Parts: sequence; C-alpha cells; structure tokens
Amino acid sequence: MPQSSTQKPPADTAERVISAPWVLPFEGSPGATGVGVISDGAVAIGDGLLLEVGTAADVSRRYPAAEHVPLERHVLMPGLVNAHGHAAMTLLRGSSEDAPLQAWLTDQIWPLEARWVDEAFCRDGIRLAMAEMIRAGVTCFADMYYFPEIGAEEARRAGLKAQIAFPVIEFPNAWSRDSDEGFHKGLALYDQYRHDPYIDIAFGPHAVYSVTEADLEKILMYSEELDANIHIHLHENAAELEENGRRYGTSGIRHLHERGLLGPRLQAVHVTQISAEEMALFAETNTQVVHCPTSNAKLASGICPVTALRDAGVNVCLGTDGAASNNVLDLLGEARLASLLAKLEQSDAAALPAGAALTMATQSGATALGRGELTGSLTAGKAADLIAVDMGAIRHQPLYDPVAQVLHTSSGNSVSHVWVNGECLLDDGRLTRMDEQEILHTAHTWQQRIRPR
Amino acid sequence: MPQSSTQKPPADTAERVISAPWVLPFEGSPGATGVGVISDGAVAIGDGLLLEVGTAADVSRRYPAAEHVPLERHVLMPGLVNAHGHAAMTLLRGSSEDAPLQAWLTDQIWPLEARWVDEAFCRDGIRLAMAEMIRAGVTCFADMYYFPEIGAEEARRAGLKAQIAFPVIEFPNAWSRDSDEGFHKGLALYDQYRHDPYIDIAFGPHAVYSVTEADLEKILMYSEELDANIHIHLHENAAELEENGRRYGTSGIRHLHERGLLGPRLQAVHVTQISAEEMALFAETNTQVVHCPTSNAKLASGICPVTALRDAGVNVCLGTDGAASNNVLDLLGEARLASLLAKLEQSDAAALPAGAALTMATQSGATALGRGELTGSLTAGKAADLIAVDMGAIRHQPLYDPVAQVLHTSSGNSVSHVWVNGECLLDDGRLTRMDEQEILHTAHTWQQRIRPR
Repeated sequence: MPQSSTQKPPADTAERVISAPWVLPFEGSPGATGVGVISDGAVAIGDGLLLEVGTAADVSRRYPAAEHVPLERHVLMPGLVNAHGHAAMTLLRGSSEDAPLQAWLTDQIWPLEARWVDEAFCRDGIRLAMAEMIRAGVTCFADMYYFPEIGAEEARRAGLKAQIAFPVIEFPNAWSRDSDEGFHKGLALYDQYRHDPYIDIAFGPHAVYSVTEADLEKILMYSEELDANIHIHLHENAAELEENGRRYGTSGIRHLHERGLLGPRLQAVHVTQISAEEMALFAETNTQVVHCPTSNAKLASGICPVTALRDAGVNVCLGTDGAASNNVLDLLGEARLASLLAKLEQSDAAALPAGAALTMATQSGATALGRGELTGSLTAGKAADLIAVDMGAIRHQPLYDPVAQVLHTSSGNSVSHVWVNGECLLDDGRLTRMDEQEILHTAHTWQQRIRPR
Repeated sequence: MPQSSTQKPPADTAERVISAPWVLPFEGSPGATGVGVISDGAVAIGDGLLLEVGTAADVSRRYPAAEHVPLERHVLMPGLVNAHGHAAMTLLRGSSEDAPLQAWLTDQIWPLEARWVDEAFCRDGIRLAMAEMIRAGVTCFADMYYFPEIGAEEARRAGLKAQIAFPVIEFPNAWSRDSDEGFHKGLALYDQYRHDPYIDIAFGPHAVYSVTEADLEKILMYSEELDANIHIHLHENAAELEENGRRYGTSGIRHLHERGLLGPRLQAVHVTQISAEEMALFAETNTQVVHCPTSNAKLASGICPVTALRDAGVNVCLGTDGAASNNVLDLLGEARLASLLAKLEQSDAAALPAGAALTMATQSGATALGRGELTGSLTAGKAADLIAVDMGAIRHQPLYDPVAQVLHTSSGNSVSHVWVNGECLLDDGRLTRMDEQEILHTAHTWQQRIRPR
C-alpha cells in the first residue's frame, strides 16, 4: 500500500537539490590528505540535513519534486569552521600595527579594551565579525570574549553555529569583577543554552599565566560534570613559555597535564612551541590544537608545527584569531597560509597538500569543537552546513584541480552562498539575515568614536 | 598678456581629477617604511601624467574645468609593479601541485611545455594573465617566456607597461633551436621596441646553471651597449646552489660577479639563499632583487631575507612568479605574505611594516625595472599609473590605518580602477580594453585540450 505523503520516508522529503560542477565532500578522516571530488555533483537537503550527496544525475532523479538550485561555475563544499577568534575585537581591526604580542596587548589592545569594551561594543563588534565570516564561508565559529551572553544571543540571531567561551581571567574587566563572578555568569549562560542545537557554551581560561590554579581546578571539575569544552591560548610564543617557566617551573602544556586538563575537550590555541614529548601527550590525550597562522606570523609568535602534530596523530584545525591581529576573518586565507608555511617549515613542497589544508578548515574544526559527527563534511545525515565558492572569475582559470584551485586562488571574496542547517545565510553574495548597510554604518560610528579621523 | 588656450602651461590642462578619502603617494625612497597619507586627497591627470597630488580641495580649485571622478570609499595609490612572472604559464595554473621545484619543473612543467607551448598558447596565456593582473591592480609587469614578440605585442595591445625578457637558454625549445637563434630574434625585438614608451626588451638568461659562459659574456656585452636589463632566476633554492657549486665551484652570485654581470641592470629573481658577503656585493653594485614569496613557499624553496637585504641597502621588489607555482597573479597578496614572512623570519613583529611592503610592490618594482623616475609613486611629473582600492566592504571596516588596511585586508579582488598613462584599463571592476568573456572561453578551451575533464 502506498504511503500517504505525511508518512513518506526522509529520502523522499528533500526540499532542495543544489548542483554544481564540482562537489568536494571532504569525507576523509581529519588526518587524510585526499579529497573525493564529485564532478557534476549535487546535494539534497531536507529538514536542515544532507539527505544525499552524489552525482547530479542520481540526486535529481531521486528527488524530482525538490526545488533545484543549479550553480554553474561553483565548487560546493562543507562550511568552514573558524575555531578561534575574538569577534568583538573586529571593531579594533587595524588599530595597532607591526607590534609584537606582549607590547601589542599591554600597550595597545588592553588599554583600548579598558576604555571601550561594553555591551554595545560587543554586540556591534560581533555583528560586524559575523557578517564578514558569513561572507567568507564560515558556518560555525569559536569565540572567546567578554559579554559572552551577547555573543551567544547574536550568533543565534544570525543563524550561525558557535562555541562561545566565557572568559576566566584573574584581573577585573568590564564583564566580571573577578573569576568568581565570571564562573557564576558563565554557568548561568551554560544552562540557558544547554539544549540549543546552534550554541555551545565553553570555558575560556585566557592563558595558563593569567588564570589561578584554583580556577583551573574548578574548570576541570565543571567541564567533566557538564561535558563542556575548554578553550585556552597555549604556548603562543617563546615569551609565554618563559613566563610559564618562571611561575610554574614547567611548560604550560605540562602544567595543564599535571592538573588533568589535557583531553578531547581541551582546545589548545596557537601552540607555536611544542616538544616531541608534549606532542605525544596531546596525541595520547586527544587534545585539540587550533592553528592561527596569520596572527602568529603578524605578531612574530612563530609557526605551529602542523606536520609534526598531524604525524603524531593530533587533530589540528584553523582559526583566524581576532581581526585586531590578522586583519581579516577569512578562513580560506588561513588554510592557504597554513599550507605555504608548512611547506617552508618542512622544506618539503609536498607538506600539507591542498586537500589536507582544506580538511583542517572544515572537518578538523568541527571535530575540535566536538561537532565532528554532526557537521564538517558533506555526508548524508549530517547538518546541511555548506558553502558554494564561485570559480567563474579570471583568477580561477583554467581549472584542472578544484581542490588546489579553491585553496590557492580563492578567498572569502569568492564565496557566493552559505547554508547553515539548510538555511541560506548568503545568497549569491547577499546577506539574507543581516542588514549590511546598518553594520557598515555602525562600524564607522565606532571608528569615529574610538579614533576620530 | 593672457596666454591663449593653446599656450597654457601644463598645470592648466588637467583632463581629469580623481578624488578619494585616502591618497597614498608612496613618495619615500624605496628603503623608507613610512608612507604619506593625504586624507580627502586627489590627483590631477593630463597628457598621461600626474600634474598634481594633494588635497581634494586644492587640486579641484586648481583644475575647475577637469572631469571629476569622485571615489567615495577608496584608497588611491600607485599602480603595482609585478617584477617577475611567466604570464603564458597561466594556462598551466593548478596543473601540478604540491611538488618541489626540481621535480615540478622536470617531471611536470617542462613536459607540459614541450607538448603545448606555441604561439597560440603564449598569446592566449598572456592575455589571460594580463586580464588577471589588471583586475589585481598591476600597471607594469616583467615577463620572461618563450615567444617574447607575442608578449610584447599583447602587452602593447592591452595598454600595460612591460619589461619582456627574451629567453636565453641552452636547450632547444619551441621558440629557438639554440641560444644563437634566441639572441638573433631577441635583438631584433629589442630594435623594434627601442623607442616604445610602454615596452622594454630585456635579456632573460634562465639561470646560471642553464646558460653557457659564452652566452653570459654576450649578454653582458649587449646589455652594456644597449643599456638593456638582465632578468635571471638566481639562488632560487638550496639545490640550485649545490648545482652551481658542482659546475663552477662557486655560488651563482659569485659566478655572475666574477664575469662582471652584477649591477643596476641585473634583476636577481628569488634569492632565497645569500651570504652577508653576497649581500654586500649586491649593495655595492646596486643589483636588483625580486622577491617571490608565494612561489618560494609553495615550492618549498625558502624565504628571501628581505630585511637583511634592505638593511644592507639593496633594492628589493616583488613578483608573483608564474601562476603555475602560485596560483594567482595578485601582487597585494605577495606584499602581505612578504610582510608576514619577514616578521616570522626576523622574529620581530615590527619587521617589514605595511608601508615598506607596499613600497616594495610599487616604487621598488619601478626602480628595479629601470623606470623609477617615470612611475612607481604618485608624484607630479610621473606617469599617471595608479589604482583605486575599494575599501567599502565589510572586511575593511572600521578603517583606522589605510596603509595597514590595504595590505592586510585587501587583495586584487578589492581593486576597482586602474589607470596607465592616464588611460582607464579597469573601470569600477570592468575591463575596458579586453574582452573578458572571450578570455574565459579561451582558457576553458585550453584546459579541455590539455587535460580534458
């Protein structure tokens, strides 16, 4: 007996089929370098999920009633995961240039933050950042900044997936008088979003040198109890290592390990300095690493040894860091720079090939944020978090190898479409949920307030 | 007695005044790091020259009759000089990925070239490259490839300035049976363009290891006689140094120096390996260096020590190299990568600041190609070779520092206008002389011929 329409199995309920000359599923393991390429491929989307990924002929035949979105010059690939940033700091983009990390923080950024950071700054800053990230193909991002409740609220409103880490930091700031108040507010926020499919709340200890041991213990306890992630700047540069050595007589990684904090929930950001023994510790404990190549170069912090970490079995993903040290939130650019730096660092042109670099920007990021089963690749059953990259411009021609061409000739500027849970947030270059003119106007207003021209 | 209109001094004959919120003249010496910024500035153009550069109020008052082009969100700056490339190789963009220089050349690129390079390949390839370069803000480029007569002809037709180096290479190729035939054809070409204000013909010995000593002597003799430049790949990677050592018992730089070839007419491309003594030789002889950061990273060749070279007093400029090892012809991207790599290489965030990196992309390039008095900065009396970079998009906001923002947030994608000798070649993103659809179609045809999909 034929089923009634309400009883149809999921396979028949696709709302939309998107086809493109190249579909890159990135279904390999995070350590893989190869990428399947489906020529003249398509995805079927229903209920916010990917129902099928295959050739356009097969997918279209199976879902004849679905709306068809034919993209003629595009690569379809998983949405990008920006695994580290400070979105609100986008309002300070370009405010402090050509200075090393410690001077940049203490002489420039921290005074600006002390003067300007409040709820309005954070709301307007994260909106600016999200508009830029959507335009650049980011479907999920990790953020770490003051007023995380505003970050969570705005990410939800923008339709992006986000891990919002609330700050745990010794010194008083606009959001919390001390770390106790931070925990109190942060845990309330955790409760609020406990069942939200878009937002995860994580612990954001600023760095080993700026958080007390008591607070680290508290973070460990809560993190295990709640199964919540921990996001921390770790081994960002040589000066940090010296500071940790002076304070604790050991490295930051060992300091965390001795307190039981290494593990799959720990996201170690930067890691430009790491010994072979520490890499083995990361691998054993399944600790996550977030590489921020542009920020580490711009602040002269060093290069995260991605090849050695990957060879040791560590999952390494990518982040833009804040726009104040980058100065863009363009994850395709980070993937490209990661590949170029790995080749230089290894003196090996085969190091971190294109497929591996783009896997870091997608599946590895999803894995690091604990969402690897739900997003990060074009796999039937995962969320319909995907992007289209328009390869029609002169700079992409001719196109022999879509994977290398996406990595080496495109950037956020080439991203034309973004879908999160099947919802289109960028439609052929147009933001669907955000008011771009208003965001531009607000950014200009902040600039005039902070440093009148 | 008032002068008649035909006798007016040049100062009254501006055809066009272009105004923008930020004008960056880049008038400092090539070694300078600072850049003057004129807020609400303008340039006046007449007879293909810059007549005045100043505030919009002053310039407009002086040239009330000129056509006014008001750019509301833009940076006006000198046109970019791409000082090294193999334009026709753009047809091989992305054909061979993740391989080191020697394997990339011998196993992949040279066989493809042997099979495909002919007049049509060179014509279609350079047209594709020039369309991309104009879109990316290049007003003058140095090229080195087979069929230089086609390169010169097509550059002239496109309205770009170019130094076309004809190949001097030991082995037979599609263009010349041997280096004698190459000299014969190249010198005829030199004669043809001797008085052309757009095109310079230069000598293009491929590399020290692929050119005979007799040919080097011939090049030196002709170069001095004709005051023509010499463009050579030099110290590209460690393997080249070993090869030179085996052949000549010394480095490539010393080999050239001993034969009298170092000097202001010699453009040494790559130079990822160089001793302090060799730097001093370059400085003494005023030898030019062309840094190709992306290509050197992608082929794992190394990093040109830009800071040390500049400190030694050597003029260092930038090139994209061919698209087969980059994969884009985007000089703003090269300037950014040069700055990031210099900071890493020096462990100093203040190394190669934004103004210095952009000076390398403009004035230093003009100087290296022997056109430093004629172009490379926005200076009254120089050619009206300039570009506008549209800073209106989300990724450029807020804008505190136009110099850093151009370097770190823009790319070729942000370039909206290009003028060469006052002629607009890119008008708000539209190519005025070239047929973009035809170029795209031709590139696709070559791709299908070379590697059918």
